[in-house]
Amino acid sequence: MKLDKLVGERFKEKPSDCVIESHALMMRGGYMKDVAKGIYSQYTPLKRICQKIETIIRQEMDAIDGQEVLFPVALPAALWDESGRYESVGSELLRFTDRNGSKMVLGMTHEEAAVQLVRDYAKSYNSYPFMIYQIQTKFRDEARPRAGLIRVREFTMKDAYSFHTSQEDLERYYQICYEAYNRIFARAGIPEVVTVASDSGMMGGSLSHEYMLLTPIGEDSIAICSECDYRANMEAAESVIENEKDGSDEPLTKVHTPNIHTIEEICDFLKSPLEKSCKAVVYQKNMTDDYVVIFIRGDLDVNETKLTNFLGEEVHPAVITAECGLNAGYIGPVNLTVNGDYTVIYDQSLQGTNNLSCGANEEEYHYTGLCMERDVPNAEYIDVAKIVDGGICPKCGKKTIHISRGIEVGNIFQLGTKYTESMNMQYLDADGESHYPIMGCYGIGVGRLAASVCEAHHDDFGPIWPISIAPWQVHLCCLRADDPEAKTYADSLYKELQKAHIEVIYDDRNVRPGVMFSDADLLGVPIRLVVSPRNMKESVVELSSRDKSVQDKVALTEVVPTVKKLMEEMMQKLEA
Amino acid sequence: MKLDKLVGERFKEKPSDCVIESHALMMRGGYMKDVAKGIYSQYTPLKRICQKIETIIRQEMDAIDGQEVLFPVALPAALWDESGRYESVGSELLRFTDRNGSKMVLGMTHEEAAVQLVRDYAKSYNSYPFMIYQIQTKFRDEARPRAGLIRVREFTMKDAYSFHTSQEDLERYYQICYEAYNRIFARAGIPEVVTVASDSGMMGGSLSHEYMLLTPIGEDSIAICSECDYRANMEAAESVIENEKDGSDEPLTKVHTPNIHTIEEICDFLKSPLEKSCKAVVYQKNMTDDYVVIFIRGDLDVNETKLTNFLGEEVHPAVITAECGLNAGYIGPVNLTVNGDYTVIYDQSLQGTNNLSCGANEEEYHYTGLCMERDVPNAEYIDVAKIVDGGICPKCGKKTIHISRGIEVGNIFQLGTKYTESMNMQYLDADGESHYPIMGCYGIGVGRLAASVCEAHHDDFGPIWPISIAPWQVHLCCLRADDPEAKTYADSLYKELQKAHIEVIYDDRNVRPGVMFSDADLLGVPIRLVVSPRNMKESVVELSSRDKSVQDKVALTEVVPTVKKLMEEMMQKLEA
Repeated sequence: MKLDKLVGERFKEKPSDCVIESHALMMRGGYMKDVAKGIYSQYTPLKRICQKIETIIRQEMDAIDGQEVLFPVALPAALWDESGRYESVGSELLRFTDRNGSKMVLGMTHEEAAVQLVRDYAKSYNSYPFMIYQIQTKFRDEARPRAGLIRVREFTMKDAYSFHTSQEDLERYYQICYEAYNRIFARAGIPEVVTVASDSGMMGGSLSHEYMLLTPIGEDSIAICSECDYRANMEAAESVIENEKDGSDEPLTKVHTPNIHTIEEICDFLKSPLEKSCKAVVYQKNMTDDYVVIFIRGDLDVNETKLTNFLGEEVHPAVITAECGLNAGYIGPVNLTVNGDYTVIYDQSLQGTNNLSCGANEEEYHYTGLCMERDVPNAEYIDVAKIVDGGICPKCGKKTIHISRGIEVGNIFQLGTKYTESMNMQYLDADGESHYPIMGCYGIGVGRLAASVCEAHHDDFGPIWPISIAPWQVHLCCLRADDPEAKTYADSLYKELQKAHIEVIYDDRNVRPGVMFSDADLLGVPIRLVVSPRNMKESVVELSSRDKSVQDKVALTEVVPTVKKLMEEMMQKLEA
Repeated sequence: MKLDKLVGERFKEKPSDCVIESHALMMRGGYMKDVAKGIYSQYTPLKRICQKIETIIRQEMDAIDGQEVLFPVALPAALWDESGRYESVGSELLRFTDRNGSKMVLGMTHEEAAVQLVRDYAKSYNSYPFMIYQIQTKFRDEARPRAGLIRVREFTMKDAYSFHTSQEDLERYYQICYEAYNRIFARAGIPEVVTVASDSGMMGGSLSHEYMLLTPIGEDSIAICSECDYRANMEAAESVIENEKDGSDEPLTKVHTPNIHTIEEICDFLKSPLEKSCKAVVYQKNMTDDYVVIFIRGDLDVNETKLTNFLGEEVHPAVITAECGLNAGYIGPVNLTVNGDYTVIYDQSLQGTNNLSCGANEEEYHYTGLCMERDVPNAEYIDVAKIVDGGICPKCGKKTIHISRGIEVGNIFQLGTKYTESMNMQYLDADGESHYPIMGCYGIGVGRLAASVCEAHHDDFGPIWPISIAPWQVHLCCLRADDPEAKTYADSLYKELQKAHIEVIYDDRNVRPGVMFSDADLLGVPIRLVVSPRNMKESVVELSSRDKSVQDKVALTEVVPTVKKLMEEMMQKLEA
């Protein structure tokens, strides 16, 4: 198409609310426009990119026997009641009421809809295994949408659901899907995506992986071992601690500590390192407001995902009232009293430790010389600590954990029978016995993937789109469109390229080369052709690639075949 | 793909809630499944059909310089406030509140979003004209969803919006779009779709057309002239009445009419035809409950769309209370009294008429001898009557109007400046003066189009899909899959067809031919190939078309080229 009619604004200034480059470049390049917080309209360049990503996904899903279906965006609450998620999911699930007063939700994921679609069909083991998928709009009412397309409220997602008669069959298919995902990311231009073990969160189920594009601007933290292949989302990473007793046990001694409230202050006051302290972190359960007191080594933090998984319910940081019995700033494991129902949790970082400082559960007093075995003899220890940079790898045992940041571009979950059981989907096996099928589910966010590719491939001037998902394949510039010879040739080349089924955006505006090239940079089309009076004199066209790896002059007669060859080479690199 | 893994149930019995054939066949064939009232999930066959329809639409929209974009499903209410539609549209607009208490709506149409997307971009006349379109999920909270995909609450729609600097340019483009629509319906297999003039309803604007598939099961009524090319939705059709005075004026005479309440009863009692009566029809305005009394010739009905357009607001049938001053059953134009604010409307069917019966505004009394000019001298007449079968054509003036039923498969509207004015979108012309651009909008419902094609092309056994939108192009049946020779050949033919890029569904189940063929009929694939032991003996494959126009035996070596040729012929017929 012609650039002068391309709808959308392109501009130079980085918008002040853009904290990451992909967001800024996609705003500056006329890819999208804010409609509400975390909700965007897409202009044609982004729509075309997303459509190409969808085609790649569709091809790879079809290649592993996926059947494309379509679930509704608006779902009856009754369906989510069946699985229990209408109650259990927080306010990111958008609930509303239709004109007849029926409760409904906007689909943020479609496990329930998938089970509803197939539970009457798949009643015999003969029908298994099978996988259905859709590419559909989803809505997740995020509290803090941010970073452009990385975390939005409305988005297009491919979500797939597989159904199996055995765990072995699920694992076999999971592996097939794992590989299809690797092909999708490679074809979309980010083969560097890595998989990490993840927490399954509200999806239920056990084993799951996230596909991460490692980048400092990512919102996920990932624990990566530099010695072995261990990689896990920090939410899911086990914290391994080697505890050693510190000489002989000192006596438990009460110390007057006026105006000292934090664990840092008490360690400072005692001139003792943070590791030699026992810190209290207090939450309340969302449903009951019951208190949950966690004791953990002073230098570590609580991993709320592990805590929630252990408790089986959501929590929030506690509000410590005068009535609750807790002495804020002085909470410790010895003589702890809490009014009402409460839970006490000891992180394994404290197991077997001694000579710690801790609160004395009394205003203005701490203890020193806390010895866990002696002073808290009945403590049971679990892992609720966040893994730390430089920590011990849970797999190889070396102190080689590094924390990186990443964007989650996809995920695959082994769901087990959580949904088939709760929604009573059963099949008969060869012996006529009833079973619940075992499910897997597999997601990719289309817009987030586009933004991730931009994040991975851009320069200061714009995105550098891989040929596979670029909005167009060739950007044709006619410099000095007021020159009849150049313009006539450029017009004919435009037609010739189109005739050769090459997707071309044609800029024949009468503007300065600087404007033309900065617009071209913002659109990030991989192959650029420049027609100009000077080039016409040499009977050539300038050909360059957006990533600057190719810069060439091509004879007029050779332009189309040369472009085709370059396109093929670019594609082959991605498919390799 | 292989039929034995195709997800979805096929069955024989017509579901009791299906009143139209397309609905019944698409339920029976495993095309879709109910999720909530008027909300369906799509199985793979329907998803594939819809995707092909979308591709046809996309190609035709791109061919008329459309730029594909994507608007959100969830829109901020503030945007609809700008146009005034947040208030003016009824409860079919689904309103909800997000987690932060912001008011939102589910997009049922996207004029506001379209203006929002382009109003900062298109500030110079140079940028015009342009057209943007999307193919996206919409939600319309219908009071009475019915007839399967014909009237649903959630649906996929192509909606396009064009922007112009003059009415002439809009009309030029409107004509281009009109022709693109004709191509779309022809390519989808229903060239018989006709255009009718329509009412623009809540969209605003003046001129508009609907594309109708004429069928007795349609929910729209269309007035069609059998002599000229006049065609209009009954909602929009002008009612032309030739009034003649009936001899000399009789005197207005009060008649005692106990127990007579309806216009039929009084005409019966007086032994006078319905045409010689003046009927009162009473509504109330939705906002104020003010009464609206319409007087109309006794044999005609009120067209509520025309009434609403005249009043500029919505009405509902009146509740006549003791306090309102109206004498239900005895309402007439002479000495009418209504308490409070009210409106009286005279339909032009009464203009110049005489010797009518009518209510006397007094319990148990009617008048005879009503002469409009004499007795209601100040009446002003407008057209609020429904056009009738056998009525006068507003275009050629003959009594040649027939009322047909139709399904609306698309519409095109000239919107004027309703949205650009209310949302303050302006551009500067060549002289630096500000203007509001003029808009057109153009919609097609994808699922409804699929159902309409099914409605137009089916037999008792299933849909007969045109090759252009069929879920697969070839249905390959292997009868007696337990016969090694037949099975081996069918397997190889399946691979050969796939290699030739033919979309094939392969049924190699070990089931009776009756089951196999009735499943094939329900899937409605245009070309069927039957491999069987008997055919193998003759070294042939049976080839037939779903519409039974082709029935042939083809030598084994000729199958793929013969299929390809038939496919091409089928496509050419549609593109012609």
